[in-house]
Amino acid sequence: MQPANGRHRVVILGGGFGGLRAAKALAREPVEVTLIDQRNFHLFQPLLYQVATGGLSPANIAAPLRSLVRRQRNCRVILGKAIDFNLETKEVVLEDERVPFDTLIVSAGAKHSYFGNHQWERFAPGLKTIEDATEIRRRVLSAFERAERVSSDAERARLLRFIVVGAGPTGVELAGTLIEIARHTLKKDFRRINPAEAHVLLIEAGPRLLPAFDPDLSEDGAEALRRLGVDVRLKTMVVDITDAGATVKSGDVEETLPAATILWAAGVQGAVIGEALAKAAGIQRDRAGRLVVQPDFTLPGHPDIFVIGDLSTYADASGKMLPGVAPAAMQAGQFVASVIAARLSLAPIPEFHFKDPGSMATIGRGAAVVKLGNWKFSGFFAWLTWLFVHLLFLVQFQNRLLVLMQWAWNYVTFNRSARLITDTNRFLGEPEN
Amino acid sequence: MQPANGRHRVVILGGGFGGLRAAKALAREPVEVTLIDQRNFHLFQPLLYQVATGGLSPANIAAPLRSLVRRQRNCRVILGKAIDFNLETKEVVLEDERVPFDTLIVSAGAKHSYFGNHQWERFAPGLKTIEDATEIRRRVLSAFERAERVSSDAERARLLRFIVVGAGPTGVELAGTLIEIARHTLKKDFRRINPAEAHVLLIEAGPRLLPAFDPDLSEDGAEALRRLGVDVRLKTMVVDITDAGATVKSGDVEETLPAATILWAAGVQGAVIGEALAKAAGIQRDRAGRLVVQPDFTLPGHPDIFVIGDLSTYADASGKMLPGVAPAAMQAGQFVASVIAARLSLAPIPEFHFKDPGSMATIGRGAAVVKLGNWKFSGFFAWLTWLFVHLLFLVQFQNRLLVLMQWAWNYVTFNRSARLITDTNRFLGEPEN
Repeated sequence: MQPANGRHRVVILGGGFGGLRAAKALAREPVEVTLIDQRNFHLFQPLLYQVATGGLSPANIAAPLRSLVRRQRNCRVILGKAIDFNLETKEVVLEDERVPFDTLIVSAGAKHSYFGNHQWERFAPGLKTIEDATEIRRRVLSAFERAERVSSDAERARLLRFIVVGAGPTGVELAGTLIEIARHTLKKDFRRINPAEAHVLLIEAGPRLLPAFDPDLSEDGAEALRRLGVDVRLKTMVVDITDAGATVKSGDVEETLPAATILWAAGVQGAVIGEALAKAAGIQRDRAGRLVVQPDFTLPGHPDIFVIGDLSTYADASGKMLPGVAPAAMQAGQFVASVIAARLSLAPIPEFHFKDPGSMATIGRGAAVVKLGNWKFSGFFAWLTWLFVHLLFLVQFQNRLLVLMQWAWNYVTFNRSARLITDTNRFLGEPEN
Repeated sequence: MQPANGRHRVVILGGGFGGLRAAKALAREPVEVTLIDQRNFHLFQPLLYQVATGGLSPANIAAPLRSLVRRQRNCRVILGKAIDFNLETKEVVLEDERVPFDTLIVSAGAKHSYFGNHQWERFAPGLKTIEDATEIRRRVLSAFERAERVSSDAERARLLRFIVVGAGPTGVELAGTLIEIARHTLKKDFRRINPAEAHVLLIEAGPRLLPAFDPDLSEDGAEALRRLGVDVRLKTMVVDITDAGATVKSGDVEETLPAATILWAAGVQGAVIGEALAKAAGIQRDRAGRLVVQPDFTLPGHPDIFVIGDLSTYADASGKMLPGVAPAAMQAGQFVASVIAARLSLAPIPEFHFKDPGSMATIGRGAAVVKLGNWKFSGFFAWLTWLFVHLLFLVQFQNRLLVLMQWAWNYVTFNRSARLITDTNRFLGEPEN
C-alpha cells in the first residue's frame, strides 16, 4: 500500500451491484476512486426479463453511472473497456488509456456459458445486457408476426414454439412471462392465429427447477408454471440447437422440437477480462472461468487486488459458497471498501460474513416463491413480496414510481406496452424490413 | 369499384397518423381493411426528439398497431414491406406476399432529404425513426464521454460542439433540448470537462426559424433560443459535412466548424415506395419525391388509389398547400374513409376542407411558441399549451400518464433518466465497446 502522489488510488472495474456499492462505500474515505465501465449505466439485471418481454423499457431498469455518483466528489467515471493489466506498474490497460491504481477492485461480472457449444449462441441468445433483452423481445414478437403470415401448419407450429433452456430464476421468469403474453396480452391481436396455442417449454437438466431454493418451493414453482400452461421438462438435456429447433434428451429418449425461438438461461461463466487478470496474477481460473479469492476477496499473493461478484469464487471457512446473486455482490463491495479503509487507517481488518437476505423468484402473473430465513411461502403474497423488494432495491432510481405504475397498469390490463420490434437482427444478419 | 368476393377490400399502406386514422374511420363500414406497415407500432413522431435526448423511452411514444385496432374486427394488420404495385391485378406486392385490394390508401410518409448529398447522412443523421432517435442519443452522450477523456483542447472543443441543421420545429426542439442537457442535466456529471461549455448551433438557410409560423413568433423563438444559449445562425447554408465537422456559408463568408455531432433536420422527401407507385400509375413525382393528388386525394386517372400524408402534395381550390403535419394527415385519412363509405352507399361524395388546428413548437425548458387561429403567444403559457395538446393526442396510448409523470419529474429535477448509450454505431461501423 503505497499512497502515490497524494491520495490512495482505488480503481474499480465494473459498475454493477458489487462495483457500484464499493464506490459508494468509499465516499468518505481518503481515497480517489475511478470507476471504469464499458457501459454508461448501471443495470438492474433482476428485471431484465421484463424488458425482454415488453413489460418495461430499458431506461426503467438502467441508471446513468455518472448520475449515481454525481455528488461523490472523490469518484470519477471512465467509459472504457479494459483489455489487460500490468501488475508491475500497477495499471489497468484500457483500449486507449492506462489507469494506474494503488488498490484494484475487479467486479466485471459474468457472461453466458454454452458449455463449449458456442455455435448455439446465435440460435439461443442469453439475457445479460439491454441489447440481449431487446433482441429477445424482437425475436418473440417477430415469431408471432411471422406465424400470422405463413400458410404451412408445421411452420406455424414451429414459430409458435418457445423453448427456454435452464430453470434458474431467469428461465422460470421468462417461461412464465412468455405464457402470459401468449394467453393474455396477445389474445385478441391476431386474426389468423390463436396466440394462446403457443407452446412454451422450460427445459432443465437437473431434477428440479430453482435448484438454489428448497425442494418444496421448487415443487410449488413447477406446479404453478404448469398451471399457467408451461410445459416443464426436468431431467432433460439439450443435445443440439440449430436454426430449426432444439434436440433434447430425457433418459434414453431423444426428441427434436422444431422451434423458432430458443432462449438460453442455462449457464454463466466469468467475464472475458478475467482471463487477462488470471494470467497477469499468475493464477488459474476455475472451470466456470471465475477467480478463486481469499477470505478477504483478494487474489492469492496480490493483497491489493480484490475480485468480487460473479467473476469470483468465494467459500467461507466452512466451505460454503457465496451465491451469485446481487445481495452477495453488494455485501462483498461494502466489505472490500471497509478493508481498504481499515488498511489506510491502520485499524483492525474486518471479517466477511454473508447475511443471506433470502431468495425469491416470480413464476408469472401473481405468483412467486420466496424464502426468507426459515420462512418459505409461495403464491400471490409471495408475488407481492417479490414486487415490494424489487421496487425497494430500485430505490436509487428515479424510475421507481414509473415502474410501479407501469406494473400496476400491466397487471390490471394484461397489457405490455413496450412491445416494440426494433433494431436489426444481430445474430442472423437479416436486416429489419 | 368492384366489391370482390364478398366485402370491399381496402388496403392501407402505412400505420402513421393518416393511415391509422383511415383504418379506424372505416370500422363500421362494410369493408375489409388490411393495414400494412413495416414496423409493428404506430409512432408519435412529434415527440421523437424527446427520445433522441434521453427524456422519454421509445415505448412511451410508440404503441403496437395490433393493440390499436384489436377490437376492430374488420381490420387485420400485416407486418410487411411493400416493394411494388400491380395496378392491373390490383395488388400490393410485399417481399413475400401479394395483397389484393379494391381500394388502396397509401400513407407511407417521408424520409430525410440531403438534397443530393447522400454522403452527409452518415455524419449527420436525421430523426424519423426510433432507431434514428437512439442513434442520436448515443452520439450526443458519447460525445460528452469522449470529451471527458481526450487531452487535446481542439479535439475536446470539437466533441463539445453540436450542430443542428434546419430550423423547423424538429431542429428548434433538438437545439433547445441539447443546450438544456449541457447546461443543466449533465452539469455535475463530469470531472474534467464542463458540459456547460458545449457549443450548440442551429443553422438555417432561410431568413428566420420556424418558417411555417408567423414572423413575430419566429422572432420570439429565436430570442428564446439565444437566451438559453443556442448559437442561432440564419441565412446560413451548409456547404459540406464530413466526419470532422461542417462547412457553412453566410453571405460570402465560408467557415469550417469542427464538430463531432451534427444532426439533420433540414429536409424531407417522399418515402421510397412512392417511386414504384408513381411508375405503376404512370405519373410523375414532384421535386421532393411526392405524388400530386386530386381534390379527393386520388391519383389522376386512378380513382381507387388514394395518397395521403407526407407522401402526397395537395393544393386546395385556392392553390393553398396542405401542410406536412400530423393534423393534416389525420384529417385526410378521415376524409378518404368517408369518400370510400359514400361511394359504397352511393351517397354524395363529400368535399375536403382542412381545419387548421394551429401550430406550435417548443423552444426548450418552459418555452414554446403557439399559433391558434388568430391567437399567437409564446413563453411559459405557450409551453403548457404545447404540453397539454401533446398529451391529449397521446390519448390513445396507455402511456399518457407515464409520459406526464416523467415530464413532471424531468422538469422539476432537470434530469433525463433515459440517458442510455445502447446498440452499435449504425453509420460508422465502430462496435460498441
